[in-house]
This record gives sequence, C-alpha cells and structure tokens, in this order.
Amino acid sequence: MSEYRFPYQDALFVLNELVDLEQICHNAGLDEFAEGLGEAVLDEAAKLGGEQLAPLNRIGDQQGATISDNTVQQTEGFSEVYQQFCEGGWPSLAGNPEFGGQGLPVSLAVAVNEVWQSANMGWSLCPLLTQGSIEAIETHGSEQLQQTYLPKLISGEWTGTMNLTEPDAGTDLAALKTRAVPEGDHYRITGQKIFITWGDHQMTENIVHLVLARLPDAPAGVKGISLFVVPKFLLDENGNTTDQRNDAFPVALEHKLGIHGSPTCVMSFGDNEGAIGYLVGEENNGLACMFTMMNDARQGVGLQGLSISERAYQQALEYAKERIQGTLRDGSRISIIKHPDVRRMLLQMKSATQAMRALTYVARAEVDHIHNTTDEAAKAKHKARTDLYTPIVKGWITELAQEVTYLAVQVHGGMGFIEETGVAQHYRDARILTIYEGTTGIQALDLIGRKTLSDSGAALTDLLAEIETDLNGITAVELQDIVSANRTALNTANSAKQWVLETGSQDMSAAGSASVNYMMLLGYLCGGWLMAKSADIAYKQLGESDADAEYLNAKITCARFFAEQLLPRTVSLLKAMQAGGETVMALSEEQF
Amino acid sequence: MSEYRFPYQDALFVLNELVDLEQICHNAGLDEFAEGLGEAVLDEAAKLGGEQLAPLNRIGDQQGATISDNTVQQTEGFSEVYQQFCEGGWPSLAGNPEFGGQGLPVSLAVAVNEVWQSANMGWSLCPLLTQGSIEAIETHGSEQLQQTYLPKLISGEWTGTMNLTEPDAGTDLAALKTRAVPEGDHYRITGQKIFITWGDHQMTENIVHLVLARLPDAPAGVKGISLFVVPKFLLDENGNTTDQRNDAFPVALEHKLGIHGSPTCVMSFGDNEGAIGYLVGEENNGLACMFTMMNDARQGVGLQGLSISERAYQQALEYAKERIQGTLRDGSRISIIKHPDVRRMLLQMKSATQAMRALTYVARAEVDHIHNTTDEAAKAKHKARTDLYTPIVKGWITELAQEVTYLAVQVHGGMGFIEETGVAQHYRDARILTIYEGTTGIQALDLIGRKTLSDSGAALTDLLAEIETDLNGITAVELQDIVSANRTALNTANSAKQWVLETGSQDMSAAGSASVNYMMLLGYLCGGWLMAKSADIAYKQLGESDADAEYLNAKITCARFFAEQLLPRTVSLLKAMQAGGETVMALSEEQF
Repeated sequence: MSEYRFPYQDALFVLNELVDLEQICHNAGLDEFAEGLGEAVLDEAAKLGGEQLAPLNRIGDQQGATISDNTVQQTEGFSEVYQQFCEGGWPSLAGNPEFGGQGLPVSLAVAVNEVWQSANMGWSLCPLLTQGSIEAIETHGSEQLQQTYLPKLISGEWTGTMNLTEPDAGTDLAALKTRAVPEGDHYRITGQKIFITWGDHQMTENIVHLVLARLPDAPAGVKGISLFVVPKFLLDENGNTTDQRNDAFPVALEHKLGIHGSPTCVMSFGDNEGAIGYLVGEENNGLACMFTMMNDARQGVGLQGLSISERAYQQALEYAKERIQGTLRDGSRISIIKHPDVRRMLLQMKSATQAMRALTYVARAEVDHIHNTTDEAAKAKHKARTDLYTPIVKGWITELAQEVTYLAVQVHGGMGFIEETGVAQHYRDARILTIYEGTTGIQALDLIGRKTLSDSGAALTDLLAEIETDLNGITAVELQDIVSANRTALNTANSAKQWVLETGSQDMSAAGSASVNYMMLLGYLCGGWLMAKSADIAYKQLGESDADAEYLNAKITCARFFAEQLLPRTVSLLKAMQAGGETVMALSEEQF
Repeated sequence: MSEYRFPYQDALFVLNELVDLEQICHNAGLDEFAEGLGEAVLDEAAKLGGEQLAPLNRIGDQQGATISDNTVQQTEGFSEVYQQFCEGGWPSLAGNPEFGGQGLPVSLAVAVNEVWQSANMGWSLCPLLTQGSIEAIETHGSEQLQQTYLPKLISGEWTGTMNLTEPDAGTDLAALKTRAVPEGDHYRITGQKIFITWGDHQMTENIVHLVLARLPDAPAGVKGISLFVVPKFLLDENGNTTDQRNDAFPVALEHKLGIHGSPTCVMSFGDNEGAIGYLVGEENNGLACMFTMMNDARQGVGLQGLSISERAYQQALEYAKERIQGTLRDGSRISIIKHPDVRRMLLQMKSATQAMRALTYVARAEVDHIHNTTDEAAKAKHKARTDLYTPIVKGWITELAQEVTYLAVQVHGGMGFIEETGVAQHYRDARILTIYEGTTGIQALDLIGRKTLSDSGAALTDLLAEIETDLNGITAVELQDIVSANRTALNTANSAKQWVLETGSQDMSAAGSASVNYMMLLGYLCGGWLMAKSADIAYKQLGESDADAEYLNAKITCARFFAEQLLPRTVSLLKAMQAGGETVMALSEEQF
C-alpha cells in the first residue's frame, strides 16, 4: 500500500501566493501568528495525518464499521487517532475563541483539513460533519444552545451529525415526515432518517444530532421544517453528559460502494418515548439553518475531492516510477513514467489536483474576508463570491476527482483492478462525492438559479472581471500561450453567462438541461485562471536567488498543461449548453 | 434488483438498416436464412439471457468464485445455465461448419453476444475468451490441432483461456519468461501466468489453455515467443479427455473491484513434471497468433462496453421513472425523469449506447465481408477497415461505458452508492474494460501507429471519405442540424489525421501524448456518423404506413442529442492533440 505525504510545498504556495495568509492573519488581528504560521501548523498536521491516520485508511475500507444492539462500533484504531486529534487541538483550530476555539483563519484550516481528508476520507467525515453542526448552532442557535453545545463540539469532545434525508425525501426536503411536538422547553422528535454519516460510534462520550423535522401545525413544504438539536445522551443542568440515553438510535448500517470506514446509519428517532430535541433558531426556519450547515459541508466535500485526488495521484505516481514495462533500443528496460501517455495521465492528475487546491483554498479564504471586514459592502461582496464559489467547488471539483481517481487506476493497468493494490479504494470512495450534500445536478441548479439568475449575473460578472484583470496582468512573453487559452475560456464563460441570462431565464427546461455543462465550464475557467496566476507568480519567483526552480518550473508546466488539455473543454461545454433543452425534453417517458 | 430486457428493436434496426444482415446472409450463401433470421434467433437468445442468465449477475457479484486445492468453483447456478447455453447451440452460432459450427454471420452473433454480456458480464467472459482461442487455432493451428480442438471448443464442450500476462510482463510481452522445451511431439511448459480469466472452473470436462512461452533457443523480445495449446486434462489418441491431469493449475484467485463472477486465476504451469503443450503455428510466431486471438477479444471487450452500458441504462431508467422527488405548483409529486438534468443524463446514456451498438455491429460486419468476398482488393479493404475499427471499438466504447455506468449511479443519487441497489456493480464491473485486452493507451498507440502512420492514413482516409459521402446523402431539411454538427466533427478528424501524419510521424512523444485524444475524437465521429445515418433512415421510414413513429422519432432525437452534446467534444480533443508532446514531456521524474 502506498504512503501519503502532504504536498507541503504546493499547499504553502497557494496559501502564501494566492490566498495571502499573512495578510489574512494581520486582518484578523493575529499579527503574532502571521509569519510562518502555515509552516508550523501544517508540519504537525502532516505528521499526524501521514503517520497515524493514513495507515488506517485501508483498514477502514476492509473492516468497516459494524452495528449490533443499536450500537455502532467504528473501525479498530479510529478512536485512538481521534483522541490524538483532539489532544493536538485540531478540531478547534478555526473555532470561535468565545467557545474555546483557537480563532485561526479558515483558509489555514482548509489546508489542515486537506491532510485529514487525504489521509483517511472515511474517518475525516466525522469532523467534517461536526463542523457543519457547529456552523448551524453558532449562526442560528440561542445563546444557551451555543454555550451548552459549542465548546464541546469545537474541542472535539462531542461530534455532530446532520439528519436531513428520509427514505422518501432526499433532495426533496419538502417531503420530509419526521415530526417534532412541543413539550415544555423541548420537543419530542419521531421519525426515521437515512444516510446519516457517523450517526453513531464510540469515539466520544456524546453525539449531537441536528435533525430536520416538522411541527404539528407547520405549513406544508420547505417552509414548514425546523431544525433541532438531539443529543445522544441527555445533559444535566450544567451541560454535562449524563448516562440517560435519548430515544435516538442507529438501527442499521448501509453496505456501500466505498467509504466503508464511515458508518452510514439509518437513525430512528422516537421509537419509544420520543427523542428529546431543542429548537435551533426559529420554528419553521429549518431550511435556512440547513443551508448554513450544508454550505459549509459542500465546500468540505469539494475539499474531499481535492484530497482524494492528491492521494490517488501520489499512489499512481509511485507506481509509475516503479513499474518496469518496455525496452529501449539499447535493451535497457524502463519504468512506465517514461511513456508519453502515462505522463499525460499523470500530468492530467497533477495539474487538475493543483487547480482544485487553488480553488478550494481561495474559495475558503472568502470566509475569512467576510469575518475580517466591518465594511458592509465588502462583506456583501465576499458573501456573494463565496455563494458563487460553493456550487463550483462542490460540483466541479468532485466531478473532476472522478477523472483523477479513474486515471489513478488506469495508470496501474491490471493491478489497478486488484483490491490489494489499494488504488481502487480511492476510486470507490470518490464516487460518493458527486452525490452527497447535494448531487452535481443540485449544485448546477443552485449555480444557475440562485447564484446567477437571481442576481442577474452580478456576482459572476464581478468574478469574470477579476479574471480578465488578472489575465491582463500576466505580461511575460513566455506565458502568453497560457494566457491566450485562458482568454478563450473566459470568452466562453461570458457567452455562457449571456446565454443563461437571456435563454435560461426564459426557459427553465433549457436552464436545467444546460446547468451541469455551465457549472463544469465555470469550474474549468476558475481552475485555469488560478493556475495561470500561479504560473505568473512562479515565473517571477524564478528570478529570486533562493528560488526552487524545480518546483516553480513544474508549476508553470502544470498551468500550461491545464491550458492545453483541460481548458479546451470549455468550448465543447458551451456548445452543449447552447443546444438548450428542446432535444432533452423531446421524448415521452415511454420513448426512453 | 432490476431486470434486463434485450433492446430488440434497436438491435434489429442496426442489423437491418446499418449492417444489412439480409444481404450478408445472401452473400454467405445462406439464402434460406436471409429473411427474418435476426428476429427468430434474437428472440430465443433474449429469453435465455433475460430469464436465466441475468438473475445470476448479482449472485456472481456477491458470491464470486472460490478456490481450494488448486480447483476453482464457479458461482452457483453458472454451470446449469452454461449447459443450457450449449444445448441451445449458442456457442457454435457463427462457428466454422467444417468443425461443427452453424456458420451464421458474425454480425448476427455480435447481437446475440450483446445479450449474454448485458445479462451477465462475469459469466460471459468465459465464452468470449473461448472465441479467442478458436480464432487462434483456426487461423494458425495445424490440421491435427484443428480437428482435435475446434469441434469441442465450438460446441462449448470445452472452454478456452488466453495465457499472456506474467507478473513482470503485462503489455510488455517481450519480457515474458515462461519456457517451453521440446519433447517428442510436444513441449514441456514451465512458468507462471497471472490475470487468467476463467483459468479454471467445473462447467466443462476440459479447458484448453493457450499459453505464450519462450523456446530455449528463442531470440530475445517479442520475436522469440511461441503459442502453445495446453489442455487441462490430457487427451487420448481419439482426442477425448482422459482423467490424466496436465501440470497446469490455478494457484490463486484475484480479489477484484468487479466481475467477481469471473474467476481471475494465477496459473502455474509445470510445478511438477512440466505441463504438456502443443505448438500452434510456427515456432517464434506467437505474437501473430496472439494478435489473432487478441483482436477478436478486443472487439469482444468493446461489445462488453456496449452491453454493460445498455444494462446500466435500463436500470437507471427504471429508477428514474419510479423515484418520486419534487412537487409541481399544483402540489402533485413527480418522478425524477421529469427533471431536465435527469433527462439529460438518461439521453446521454441512451444516445451513447445506441452509438456504441451501431459501431460495434458495423465493425463486426466487416469480418463477414472479408469472409464473403473472393475479390482480393475488396478483402484487403475490409481487412484494413476492421483493423482500423478494432482499437476504436475497444478504446472509445469502453471509455464511454465508464461515463454511462457513472451516470447510471448518478441518476440513483444516494441509492446508487448502496450496493443492494445493484447499479454500483455495473460501475465496478465496467472498470476493467479499459484495462484488459490492452489498455486504452495501448489501443490508442495501435490506432495512431499501426493503423494510421503505417499506411500513411490510407484506411482512415477511406473511412472519412465514406462518412463525407454519407453526410452529403442526408438531404432532409429537418436533419441538417445533425449533419452540420457531424461535418464539424469530420473537419476535426481531417485536421487530426493531418496532424498525425505531419507532426505525429516526426515526433513519437507528440504522437504518444496525443494518441488517446485522437482515438476518442475518431470514436465520437464514428458514433455521430452512424447515428446521423440512422436518423436519416428513421426519417425516411416515418413515411411508411406501418412505421413505429415513437421508436423512429426517438432514434432521431438520440442522433440529435449525440450531435448537440457529444460531438462538440471532438473540438476540444483536437485542440488537446495539437498541443503535442512538449508539455507532457517537460518534467523530470523528480518534478512530478
């Protein structure tokens, strides 16, 4: 099995050059941390991730989690590393200091989270979902809820879950049936939830379930859902866990294609006396709470796409260097990395992964910008930008991650199909990414609807203008081929925007038919743009005396490869978009 | 679990309208069969496949094959259906009548094989590999070998295997180490082979292993390999199976990502006294024999890509019609097939699968044309065409099958990731298709090297001219949008050809870097062309009194969808090709 090593240098390049972590630290009043913070923190995370967590990835796949007597037992070794994770202070890194968090930038946390997700995606879903719960309670919960739950969630002492899906209500939350009946200061919750990630385990003394449910007198549809906190064990008046078990139990585990290390539970609430839950925010305001939790999780899933791509790339690269196949004319035998088509696959993986990293980190930095400014206009601008990025980060990155993990198997040839090799696990694990927290189709509808049509393309226009300015700023003659390919992609994006505003706004079927192609087009543009920007920075750094020419030239090559081989896809995506919805809607159901 | 029903109408459309099975029957002197042959045969095959074989697909996945005491036990139920398969005369359908075959056209057999492969890909690998062995012995074996082995292989009484790969010799056959030492009328074979599909089982009384090995005095490299027949049980002087076990044993089974129903063996030859083998063809002529066997298998694997796409599409369609999600303004709830993005995915699957079917059958018909003509020039032309088609059928179709099976999971949303649903099996099973019988990269090198550069593009020029003529022949105004998209694709193909002949011929790194994009480009063109041709035929048939307008209009819609959404990919593929190999080759191994 392959090892995993955090791509330290590339992560720091993105943090320092594209995100400007130092400036973010200054803006956040963290001057003492500003210099060298990234290095120190990432170094420690990389150690824990590479040495402790990564070796458990395979074990999680093979052993998985088990359930008996309504109790889930996680994979061997998972709990021990979770303890180390908490002792190292990792869960609280970017947490609100008011509740015990360390208040470091989320754009640093995203790099740290890349480590965990690459090392062990199944395990890392647990903290990822907890983060969503924290966001929801912090944004919408009462002060009492915050004081009670946030310190324990932020420290990692407890974990959190998101209970949205029901057997007949996946994407369609309007259809959910779980009920909440008021009773004194709390509610009694009854219903069944499916696909509950880390719905139960033995790693922490308590688990905090965030549950969407419907009040007895609630309006129909999504306007009638509310969000509740349902602890696994009830708390005493000091907010400490008691041994009184709440009526919220895992009743089954799903047998899945991948992420076996992550227990996916069927959760039953209220089979006996009714689960006790506490309202988060206002009654019937569950959708807003859900989106808070979901948006965070969506960017988190985009990050998983980056992480698993990096892991798969590393494994393919290792194999390509070792595997001997083919003979030169002088009789010497060569490793497959010498073959052009294998190099093409590796570069496709490498440049795609670097572009994913750039976009994930840059998108995440917007959250820091929102926090760090008091200027309302600036805040709104950053808010609009992060809203625009979210479906692209989730949708485009996770789709591209399918290609990267696919190529990782392909580089292995027949060995890739053998489970012992380990690379097939990444391919299987990655498959969930375009599905959970909103499928690719849902991301695309969000992008074309809420994020483009509803502001008449304002946020997108702003982004496209920034890209244009950046491209104009790249003046080195040696990089003009990269700039030119990006300009073509930018033109397709402008045409795509125009099509959406003109045709998509008039014809919902056309918009729906084109939405995924639209999202993919913008994703490639964002990736290409950030790679071009990186190439420009790398080119300038090459002139410095302590420059690492090997790394910087490779960065320029990756940007060029992205421009040559991936950006042209924008042209066909635009063409497919512009075909509209007529053909897509032409068949009757019987004709399919 | 979903049922499988053979897409009878579409298969007949291709056989009757694109392949002209009736004319092929006449040419082959099978006048009595010419009319209605397809219907009768396919009907019977569809029954056996749908009712007996398809339900075993899931069981094969879950139970798989097992090994103990150097003996492989296949999945429960597999042997019984294999007996029915033989009793129905299915293995001998297109077999040479001289050896007991029925001598029916291979373009009919390919449609019949689509049934088996859709119904149960793991099981169907056994007859597929047997077919390769038959081709090798029929083309290269001595009369005695033919008389001894062909009747039993053609009847299905025995099955065949292909033993090429060794632990250090996959694609690189020059490196193989298995040795064959002459001893009287036979040879003693010693060595280990891996990835041997259906290397052992209990479905037949004997198994015929075709084994590549090296003679003691053989030249180095691929010019020193020879092919041997190694029966599992030795034969008596009448060619009947004795109970004397040959020294050729399965020693392990691989634990694979998919096709669990197909036992993938590590085979050990000559652990004791040396396995007895018989030379096929001349000494040191193994490579030619291997290619005969391989080319047949490659087209067979392309067919598997079609078959699994069809199966996955059917399952996704069924789910999309049943799964309720979303509410209309009037409060009525709708199935997901009503959503434009789901329709887009379904149409992508449907039109891709139809294009695959058209190309697979049309390519296979070339083999009939070769057999049915005595004109040497015509024979050579059909031979060149089938050689050109083979890497496209294998490479493009199996790559596209990844997308189709991916979308089938995607249509299922979260349920697609749950193994019980069954659709994930198709996704896992399909993953082998771009790997075995030569990876996509190998197909692409074959296409760009042996099939384009080595004849200076003659066979391709001939194909492109035929496509142009066909497009010019489509005169209906209503189809001109489809024609126009195909013309654009044809132009990209012409540019691609020119680039290959000019740049690719001078620069092997550029050719290698561009090869997969080149292959994919030609694949889309072939698919689009045959769909356009189908649309034209369908359009004309619409005017006939007994026309099935629902089917014919759907065919036109699929052709239009293919033209709108898949053909534009040729533009980006050409662009990526033209970037050449400089960037691909730019990094040192350390820079990756």
